[in-house]
Amino acid sequence: MTLFKQVTIIGFGLIGSSVARALRENGVCENIVACDASPDCLAKVEKLKLADKCVSDAAKAVNGSELVILATPVGTYGDIGKAIAASLEFGAIVTDVGSVKGCVLKALKAVLPEHVHLIPGHPVAGTEQSGPEAGFASLFAGRWAILTPPQDADPTAVEKLKRMWEAFGSKVEIMTPEHHDLVLAITSHIPHLIAYNIVGTAHDLEGVTDSEVIKFSAGGFRDFTRIAASDPTMWRDVFLNNKEAVLEMLGRFSEDLTALQRAIRWGDGDTLFDLFSHTRQVRKQIIEAGQDEEAPDFGRPHDSPSKN
Amino acid sequence: MTLFKQVTIIGFGLIGSSVARALRENGVCENIVACDASPDCLAKVEKLKLADKCVSDAAKAVNGSELVILATPVGTYGDIGKAIAASLEFGAIVTDVGSVKGCVLKALKAVLPEHVHLIPGHPVAGTEQSGPEAGFASLFAGRWAILTPPQDADPTAVEKLKRMWEAFGSKVEIMTPEHHDLVLAITSHIPHLIAYNIVGTAHDLEGVTDSEVIKFSAGGFRDFTRIAASDPTMWRDVFLNNKEAVLEMLGRFSEDLTALQRAIRWGDGDTLFDLFSHTRQVRKQIIEAGQDEEAPDFGRPHDSPSKN
Repeated sequence: MTLFKQVTIIGFGLIGSSVARALRENGVCENIVACDASPDCLAKVEKLKLADKCVSDAAKAVNGSELVILATPVGTYGDIGKAIAASLEFGAIVTDVGSVKGCVLKALKAVLPEHVHLIPGHPVAGTEQSGPEAGFASLFAGRWAILTPPQDADPTAVEKLKRMWEAFGSKVEIMTPEHHDLVLAITSHIPHLIAYNIVGTAHDLEGVTDSEVIKFSAGGFRDFTRIAASDPTMWRDVFLNNKEAVLEMLGRFSEDLTALQRAIRWGDGDTLFDLFSHTRQVRKQIIEAGQDEEAPDFGRPHDSPSKN
Repeated sequence: MTLFKQVTIIGFGLIGSSVARALRENGVCENIVACDASPDCLAKVEKLKLADKCVSDAAKAVNGSELVILATPVGTYGDIGKAIAASLEFGAIVTDVGSVKGCVLKALKAVLPEHVHLIPGHPVAGTEQSGPEAGFASLFAGRWAILTPPQDADPTAVEKLKRMWEAFGSKVEIMTPEHHDLVLAITSHIPHLIAYNIVGTAHDLEGVTDSEVIKFSAGGFRDFTRIAASDPTMWRDVFLNNKEAVLEMLGRFSEDLTALQRAIRWGDGDTLFDLFSHTRQVRKQIIEAGQDEEAPDFGRPHDSPSKN
């Protein structure tokens, strides 16, 4: 199921390196060109044999590629777009894997030539780890990949990209960049922001030591530290580039939290119970949709589980 | 390592039934008496053979027991204490597994006779599941159990209870109820509250459908739905009974979140980056302390992981 002769991936972190592995494992292309601004990263890619060629200069890396995938923090797209613009092949597809989409079109459309197909994308998948060693081919299996093609996008190019994600085991959804940014603000950006925030709050307490926070983290806190361990540069860029939707969702979150705070202050147990009963249902639906583990505690291992 | 002849557990949900299994598996007592207000639950306990005797009347259930463990929502303690007070053996230990400790002493000390040893406790362990089927013996292994004995507590009784938790594989820490309630407010209660809250916020959006929230939950949201699937009655009682510490911590959380909101609004990337870099360190410490999985994504299985 070879869709492309040569694919260039710019940025070889968790996602870029997982895409490379998935391309190979599923025979989606013949050749992979790796590009990364960090010589250290490129050396690892070479050692792990994740690509057929490693090139540090982005303009040279896109030479001869039918598909170019940006997998760097979204704040870098403008500069990378300028650097590669003159070297892109006629009719090449340029896509990305960034967590924000509105800004991508804005940053790239302005600098890329008319003769390439710009089709932004976002696989809703990941782990808290970073770097080329952290990637794996099955990262996208069972997850959704969102494409946000411009209205005048070439249907054949969109279809080809769709088939690439499907070859990785993903389901594909097409939507506008604006809607993507709103949906992801609540399903991804705000969860990360409040996770980062509570870890910060816990660190700054005078009455509770850091060591106590760590010892007793199994009470719920530790769950939040996982996504708060995600890549700082990537996430800074997400918040700077999806400001409007994040502020809108954050306003709603805070409003709802204030209502809960008031219910606690006034001892309104019914309000608490009603919310707490409903949320269990949402978990059930996520498991039914195959988007999380049915096993308790995310399937975390517990020593010598009892069989009785 | 038999510490008790007979132990009564009142409340046979996830924690009560896990305690019963752990008592047996580690030979900590000779007989277990199960008590639960729900006939349906007691029938399950009988079917699963989790106890030597099932008794629906709490006063009768404590007859002849050296240790009585309350494992019901903390809001029920006052009534249960009144019901069992006259039937408790001379010198019996009364403990609990509740997530709030200040209110326990208040509710139980007022109604229990002088001749019993009241030593509140809290194993910082659990899953999002409920009921007697959900428990397992190793739930407490590697986790911390906190005891909050009154100042005049009998050292021998405290030591015996400590040895019970150690037999389950727990590490034991002793602290005041006030300090417990402050520490757990940040490591457990606030995490649950904001998890419940964001699931509620996501449900109430007009611009984003419930089905979209579920489909794209792997972006981070799904992590929150796990703890937001915890038992509603138990958690209602936690918030109603740890009002002061929860409101204090919630105030700090909201203050910090407002600062982050301001950084996003004004494009202050450095503030975001600094916080996001620090939080990674906290995750590392939690893993080093053996309080969470080192494997990425909590060790969630991914289909056919690549080996390259």
